[in-house]
Amino acid sequence: MSSEQSQKITNPEILSTSVKDSKKNGDKKQDKKSKLQVSLKTPKGTKDWADSDMVIREAIFSTLSSLFKRHGAVTIDTPVFELREILAGKYGEDSKLIYNLEDQGGELSSLRYDLTVPFARYVAMNNIQNIKRYHIAKVYRRDQPAMTKGRMREFYQCDIDFAGSYESMVPDAEILSILVEGLTSLGIKDFKVKLNHRKILDGIFQISGVAKEDVRKISSAVDKLDKLPWDAVKKEITVEKGQSEETANKIGEYVKLNGTLQEVYDLLSKDEAIINNEMAKQGLDDIKTLMNYVESFDINKYISFDLSLARGLDYYTGLIYEAITEASAPPENAQELKKKAKSSDDASEYVGVGSIAAGGRYDNLVNMFAQASGKKAAQIPCVGVSFGVERLFSLIKQRTHLTEKIKPIATQVIVMAFGGGKDWTGFLPERMKVAKQLWNAGIEAEYVYKSKVNPRKQFEAAEKCGASLAVILGKEEYAEGKLRIKRLGPEFADDDGELVDSENIVDAVKVKLTEVHKDGIDDVARLLKDL
Amino acid sequence: MSSEQSQKITNPEILSTSVKDSKKNGDKKQDKKSKLQVSLKTPKGTKDWADSDMVIREAIFSTLSSLFKRHGAVTIDTPVFELREILAGKYGEDSKLIYNLEDQGGELSSLRYDLTVPFARYVAMNNIQNIKRYHIAKVYRRDQPAMTKGRMREFYQCDIDFAGSYESMVPDAEILSILVEGLTSLGIKDFKVKLNHRKILDGIFQISGVAKEDVRKISSAVDKLDKLPWDAVKKEITVEKGQSEETANKIGEYVKLNGTLQEVYDLLSKDEAIINNEMAKQGLDDIKTLMNYVESFDINKYISFDLSLARGLDYYTGLIYEAITEASAPPENAQELKKKAKSSDDASEYVGVGSIAAGGRYDNLVNMFAQASGKKAAQIPCVGVSFGVERLFSLIKQRTHLTEKIKPIATQVIVMAFGGGKDWTGFLPERMKVAKQLWNAGIEAEYVYKSKVNPRKQFEAAEKCGASLAVILGKEEYAEGKLRIKRLGPEFADDDGELVDSENIVDAVKVKLTEVHKDGIDDVARLLKDL
Repeated sequence: MSSEQSQKITNPEILSTSVKDSKKNGDKKQDKKSKLQVSLKTPKGTKDWADSDMVIREAIFSTLSSLFKRHGAVTIDTPVFELREILAGKYGEDSKLIYNLEDQGGELSSLRYDLTVPFARYVAMNNIQNIKRYHIAKVYRRDQPAMTKGRMREFYQCDIDFAGSYESMVPDAEILSILVEGLTSLGIKDFKVKLNHRKILDGIFQISGVAKEDVRKISSAVDKLDKLPWDAVKKEITVEKGQSEETANKIGEYVKLNGTLQEVYDLLSKDEAIINNEMAKQGLDDIKTLMNYVESFDINKYISFDLSLARGLDYYTGLIYEAITEASAPPENAQELKKKAKSSDDASEYVGVGSIAAGGRYDNLVNMFAQASGKKAAQIPCVGVSFGVERLFSLIKQRTHLTEKIKPIATQVIVMAFGGGKDWTGFLPERMKVAKQLWNAGIEAEYVYKSKVNPRKQFEAAEKCGASLAVILGKEEYAEGKLRIKRLGPEFADDDGELVDSENIVDAVKVKLTEVHKDGIDDVARLLKDL
Repeated sequence: MSSEQSQKITNPEILSTSVKDSKKNGDKKQDKKSKLQVSLKTPKGTKDWADSDMVIREAIFSTLSSLFKRHGAVTIDTPVFELREILAGKYGEDSKLIYNLEDQGGELSSLRYDLTVPFARYVAMNNIQNIKRYHIAKVYRRDQPAMTKGRMREFYQCDIDFAGSYESMVPDAEILSILVEGLTSLGIKDFKVKLNHRKILDGIFQISGVAKEDVRKISSAVDKLDKLPWDAVKKEITVEKGQSEETANKIGEYVKLNGTLQEVYDLLSKDEAIINNEMAKQGLDDIKTLMNYVESFDINKYISFDLSLARGLDYYTGLIYEAITEASAPPENAQELKKKAKSSDDASEYVGVGSIAAGGRYDNLVNMFAQASGKKAAQIPCVGVSFGVERLFSLIKQRTHLTEKIKPIATQVIVMAFGGGKDWTGFLPERMKVAKQLWNAGIEAEYVYKSKVNPRKQFEAAEKCGASLAVILGKEEYAEGKLRIKRLGPEFADDDGELVDSENIVDAVKVKLTEVHKDGIDDVARLLKDL
């Protein structure tokens, strides 16, 4: 259902191709009609979801929301668009990716870029002192899409955030545990959680001689190390962002460090420059505290302390982390693929899935809103993590055998009528009556929308909707107040089922259905975990 | 959480008030800061959802989606914005209410106005011959909001539509049954389904002497009869829309007719003008067929055949209907209230909730897209109904006692530690270990994010999150490998609980929880039905 599959034939310049296409499906009126034409597609970077994809995605949602509830979180829902000023100055260089609504009179608004800033706005607006909230909703970024890798312009995020003043690193550790629990409960095992601390990073920049006002832009250069080699990043730091060769080299020495929390901690705590830098020292103390809790949650083995992790967003103030898998990184030959690629639209070939979940601590964002709105400034420290559903989906979808196991239609019973002869009405109103009884009892039931329909057509319909049971109105049997219940499926081909009194049909169906396995979201969620 | 509650202090003209406000909460820097200020609110006509409201809304969703599944529907998800040309010319006079995205380079897009047009686009784009689909999602209309009545600019619709060529009125009757089942399953009983047929209505306009090209605009004038008296509508027909006095009077005679399907059918089928008008006659035959099926579904008593119902949207071609309750109509003194009202923002006082669910048949919409895109034209007839969640919510919310019954936090277990003395550590890492065991077993558990915390604080936390069970790490008991399980709540005040071996804690908790009633969405859904 992705927009790639649809035909695009509005733009005059590609009308020629469209005419070819349409000649294929034999439409001769093409050229006459062309000026009226609309392109039958979804906007770039968006897609329709349907069929088993939809079931898998709902299973991801239900898995994550029950995880979030398990940790005591409540859910909220904020509008898809916010006042533009709310989003302003929160996303650094990526602010250019924000979708604006047209000025049609009234307030200037923009589509939300993430769920974090709306959450901070919500907390500040309602003077909330502490809350654990989760939010599963769509966000919008005018980025270069790579659909097959789950890099979209409209995509879902599943966020959980803890707001409130708590003992250092305690909520942070639980959020990290939630990150690990979330991915493993989705059957993703080959992942690594890259972790760093903004205060350590900023300390390193200070030590290396970066001026305070340059820190964030150098930080976002370093952030590109997951996509670019050090030489390219160094060039950006020196040539584009005007830092000295020496500064760049110093940064280079630090950011190549990574290992377990313990390893990197030991290394840094022996580094005079670090422990003499107030900010870096604070960060390092946090890490020491964290190690203790991470052990309680037994998630040490997933974490890699990586000084090259910077995260683009401006608002992080402490711990930052992102989960990556094999698929996250761009392929070896990404650069040359990029050159070869005909259209920039199809970036799928030369980008990775990217991080599948990410987050960090942001202690000043709520405060920022409180102050800017003239409220009494109140610092509400926050920490959270965001799961990227489309990216997770594209990983899960690779387990091809999954899709076959899924039944998108819930129908359990099909109501049929068998009869014949010239007085045969087809029992349509009668089938409707029976279906209505089943619906009222909460049973999923269908019937063929046709007065007279032969048995074959009705069995075909049963197969299409995957019904496991048939309730049959036989011409004579029904006249005698009897209905026939029959199990469906090849293994029951020779089973004629059983006759029951019409008034007992609902109970009889309920009993039979207990024999049948029902595929619900929960079953699919279980499938995900085990694959 | 509605935006009304938030303080709005950007606009200079009301800065004075904002200064007053802030003086109240003692912020003296107000005047200096005012130019930096952002207004801490959601855009007009939107709101945040939280707490028990959120639980109630999710219960509405789960009630309706299980209803839709019961009728064999699958769900799809389309983007929040569509190419602008897709929405163009579908909504008659209301097209002015569409939200456009700013032109930031690339395609021109707009936020979806409903879920019907995107559905038709989806069906045409994928050459789908038949589908029963439901879709629960937000839509956007730049309308005059009346928040307390559930009239929003961003609001949820729950739609089910049947696409495909079927025997006349069969899917239509089932959709009507779904409409009735949906409202009753939400505990709404005092509703009426107004029903009419576009072909009968258009026939009436023909008979009354309205020119073909004027039919739709006269239709949308008649559509206002639920809000305006006939004289006002007549004025619009004659003065504004240039029809003759005689034409208007003729229309007036017909549109005042309403009653049961049978009553109005009998009346019309005796009307020479009607039965001699081809279109009206077709509509009348449909009604005759419908009456038979509506009886099978036993929903006759809810339906009122009302010739004044016109529905604004352009794309309807057959049956049209909308469900209304007492609360739907504007209050008697609406007009004077309107005059009195200080700001047009607060329309709540002088408008009704409006229709709580509505829909109809649209047989040409898919075809329109297919043709316009140069595909081989394929007529895919459609019929559907849309439930207005916010309006339903505002009715349900009036059952005040509902909210108290709801527990937004799912937490079942709180992990505590009791101890003392100067060597007392508070067992924080130990509490974390136990919580982690419970989470891994799928049990909702919390603990206080503090190393040393006294029993009172921990019991307060337990009450706040509504935990029904406490797992207690006693200083001595834990040393001996024992944990204490205790039921919470006043009736268990004197119950010290029982000691269990640490390694058996998960099973022990599971057993204890079976004794406890768990409030889930399903329970709330059941609440809705019974109230």
